Amino acid sequence: MQRFLDLADFNRDQVADLVALARRLQEHPEPQALAGKILGLLFMNPSLRTLSSFQAGMMRLGGSSFVVTPGQGTWQVETRTGAVMNAGAAEHVREAIPVLASYCDALGIRSFAEGKDLASDIAETQFQLMASLCDKPFVNMESAMNHPCQSLADWKTMDDLGVPRQGRFVLSWVYHPRALPLAVPAATVHMAAQRGMEVVVLRPEGYSLPEPVMAKARAAAAASGGTVTETSDRAAALAGAHVLYAKEWGSPLAYGDAEAETKLRDPLKDWCVRDDWFARARSDCHFMHCLPVRRNVAVADEVLDGPRSRVIQEAANRMVVQMAVLYRLLKG
Amino acid sequence: MQRFLDLADFNRDQVADLVALARRLQEHPEPQALAGKILGLLFMNPSLRTLSSFQAGMMRLGGSSFVVTPGQGTWQVETRTGAVMNAGAAEHVREAIPVLASYCDALGIRSFAEGKDLASDIAETQFQLMASLCDKPFVNMESAMNHPCQSLADWKTMDDLGVPRQGRFVLSWVYHPRALPLAVPAATVHMAAQRGMEVVVLRPEGYSLPEPVMAKARAAAAASGGTVTETSDRAAALAGAHVLYAKEWGSPLAYGDAEAETKLRDPLKDWCVRDDWFARARSDCHFMHCLPVRRNVAVADEVLDGPRSRVIQEAANRMVVQMAVLYRLLKG
Amino acid sequence: MQRFLDLADFNRDQVADLVALARRLQEHPEPQALAGKILGLLFMNPSLRTLSSFQAGMMRLGGSSFVVTPGQGTWQVETRTGAVMNAGAAEHVREAIPVLASYCDALGIRSFAEGKDLASDIAETQFQLMASLCDKPFVNMESAMNHPCQSLADWKTMDDLGVPRQGRFVLSWVYHPRALPLAVPAATVHMAAQRGMEVVVLRPEGYSLPEPVMAKARAAAAASGGTVTETSDRAAALAGAHVLYAKEWGSPLAYGDAEAETKLRDPLKDWCVRDDWFARARSDCHFMHCLPVRRNVAVADEVLDGPRSRVIQEAANRMVVQMAVLYRLLKG
Repeated sequence: MQRFLDLADFNRDQVADLVALARRLQEHPEPQALAGKILGLLFMNPSLRTLSSFQAGMMRLGGSSFVVTPGQGTWQVETRTGAVMNAGAAEHVREAIPVLASYCDALGIRSFAEGKDLASDIAETQFQLMASLCDKPFVNMESAMNHPCQSLADWKTMDDLGVPRQGRFVLSWVYHPRALPLAVPAATVHMAAQRGMEVVVLRPEGYSLPEPVMAKARAAAAASGGTVTETSDRAAALAGAHVLYAKEWGSPLAYGDAEAETKLRDPLKDWCVRDDWFARARSDCHFMHCLPVRRNVAVADEVLDGPRSRVIQEAANRMVVQMAVLYRLLKG
Repeated sequence: MQRFLDLADFNRDQVADLVALARRLQEHPEPQALAGKILGLLFMNPSLRTLSSFQAGMMRLGGSSFVVTPGQGTWQVETRTGAVMNAGAAEHVREAIPVLASYCDALGIRSFAEGKDLASDIAETQFQLMASLCDKPFVNMESAMNHPCQSLADWKTMDDLGVPRQGRFVLSWVYHPRALPLAVPAATVHMAAQRGMEVVVLRPEGYSLPEPVMAKARAAAAASGGTVTETSDRAAALAGAHVLYAKEWGSPLAYGDAEAETKLRDPLKDWCVRDDWFARARSDCHFMHCLPVRRNVAVADEVLDGPRSRVIQEAANRMVVQMAVLYRLLKG
Repeated sequence: MQRFLDLADFNRDQVADLVALARRLQEHPEPQALAGKILGLLFMNPSLRTLSSFQAGMMRLGGSSFVVTPGQGTWQVETRTGAVMNAGAAEHVREAIPVLASYCDALGIRSFAEGKDLASDIAETQFQLMASLCDKPFVNMESAMNHPCQSLADWKTMDDLGVPRQGRFVLSWVYHPRALPLAVPAATVHMAAQRGMEVVVLRPEGYSLPEPVMAKARAAAAASGGTVTETSDRAAALAGAHVLYAKEWGSPLAYGDAEAETKLRDPLKDWCVRDDWFARARSDCHFMHCLPVRRNVAVADEVLDGPRSRVIQEAANRMVVQMAVLYRLLKG
């Protein structure tokens, strides 16, 4: 394994193998497996879980890491090809990435969507450029339209919880004061489809995921025996659900247009998950969210502090599955 | 030992044991004692000594650490229970702390006083919530009203210097352009009292430490054979002093009221320690300060650069005693 | 070796020895050479290569490091002797540096020129103070007028490329939206002279390097058999060149005067290196730059992405030569 860019690059057996390796490293630690190995971590955007879990994961395998955060102690970086750099950015990724790659044995990059041109973000134009500039094993720590580490952690969390492969998985839009990227919802709908689940995307009008995202998920479902549908009917969506996975995202109809986005989302403040959302779900329905989450805006305290919440377990699994990814990238 | 929250949680023999362990690790390094162990460090406020000495201390014991700084590369975090998070903070400590705890073997948190409601800060409402969210060994790296690592370092520094247990310890208020938290003065008065010293709090009118702080110190003095008094008479306070410990703090009478505070402190700019403060002190009287210190505002160059100053030694002892704390927390 | 402040402190054989050690560590890694050793890194200014390569270099030798960045998670620091600290800075280097030194086995500091008083910057007033406050092995990670790690990496890069000791080395001024420090050009002209090269400083009128810098380089050339000249004639300068080394710097005539500087440099936007600059150079002429570089402002894409560019190799050599420096400082 040379790159961990997208869970879709792996078939279901390969994902199962990563999850199994993660579990093995949990049960039988290998504190010297990556001794002497160095992970470079480049964060173009904020992070808590990714920042700390990648560092801790390397330490648990005997390796080490360094962190570079443009704009905070390091130069702002330019990503546009052909740019005339006479503004804020002092360095281009065309230099920054090969240089960082030369210091480490594997490189992880987080770079959120530009949020201006939907087609360009869906094509992962920026991230593909950055990945192509790295000649070392490479990890996607969240790109414009993907977050494979989160999805792998969520997959393992459902395995840990005994959620059946064919279980009903509801990915629900929830309210946030402003548009957030599509990375996690796009990765999540595909992951659940690839796992073979009965996937329902629950979202208000105007918040359908982009058609290429849905088409990719449907193709994964077709291969795994799952299904992917969408609805704005909350009660129908959640009937019999094994999992409610909440996430905030911006409308593809107002992409890059903050004013239009505000008009669309302002009437949707009741899309805050409360206990009564689970009325028709299975009694053991799990609540999942990738974090960070705005309490009492996207999800109510009663849910996050209640017995259905698995958010801490999901986050804990981030380190665990990333150790497996690093192990495969650096040790094989 | 599972928590290091307050030096007052330990009796004098237990403190002496920590100091002895610190000294033993100084003289007989154990570079593999904490091999494989990971310390998480969460800084809600700036730091130089704590930031670097905890990392270096873990390294010296063969362990490692990671740093998370909300607002700098990581989300702003909310601490208020029940908050409706529609403003700047994207993440709540109710998620952030258990998640970070899941990645490490021990967690340290720095979180200064809110500085709005004195009773709430004295009760350590915020810090107790944060500590309760961590299921791993936990270190207070400075809370609203405490700084046990500083106090333990100061205790050891006085031992190193041969300052007698019953020596005269003057904690003096000094000027600063604005109110600083009560954490270090509160911890220091208690530490010196617990050590059995003749403690004098020297402060201008309006700058008495809060009564619960003084009462706690007096109780410690009663148990150890020391005394705690206060005065605004500089000459009387310093007569025969073994130690002058300078610290800046805000008036409890103007807590959270910057305007009232400015009025109180503006006439007090002569509370800047100079050589002549030591006129009636013992000839070998030591000058101490926890740092950082504003030169020629709180303390004059002539004192900081003079032969009485122990500020570097105190700071150096921070790493040394924290290694003992980490050793007890992680190795027993 | 106790200090690595200036390549001029070492004679040509000593530099060759460091380069040889760097190459040996590249070919025969010693992953435990600095086990247990701690490097402190204090960055008063932004960094990408230095920040990551020092950390990675320590890791590759089995050691570890911590990073302190005033103003970002740590207090702003004051550097002026005798300052009355009633403004933004909460801590003075007179405390910060000895304290950090007490936690580590070697300390590196980056502190750019103040850019106000040329004589003071040339005298390295500030940096010499900081170095004098550290009682541990010390590394200059870029000071007002020097960048010895960059120069050592560039020396090794030219050795790696087979550039002859007597080759023609053109250091050319290039455009940047504002004045940058003289550290790299000053270090570079000296390094190339010390290596014995035929050094030509190519710069527009008003951008001659300060006479003390040129005198120091000429003295090094005299000792090594090289030469140092300057010109504003681009074609003449580059005729027969083995290396074109581009760098941005501010005019000594407008030092600390942004308005005068703007007037001087505004007409010089054609000083952006393009392929046609190499018309009369040797066919294998190498292009070098210390990075970061503003693409299509200082250097055109066609050069940075073309076959002459060695900028990534130079940056990669930063880690390699710094490992040799750390090895000598910490192991001898």
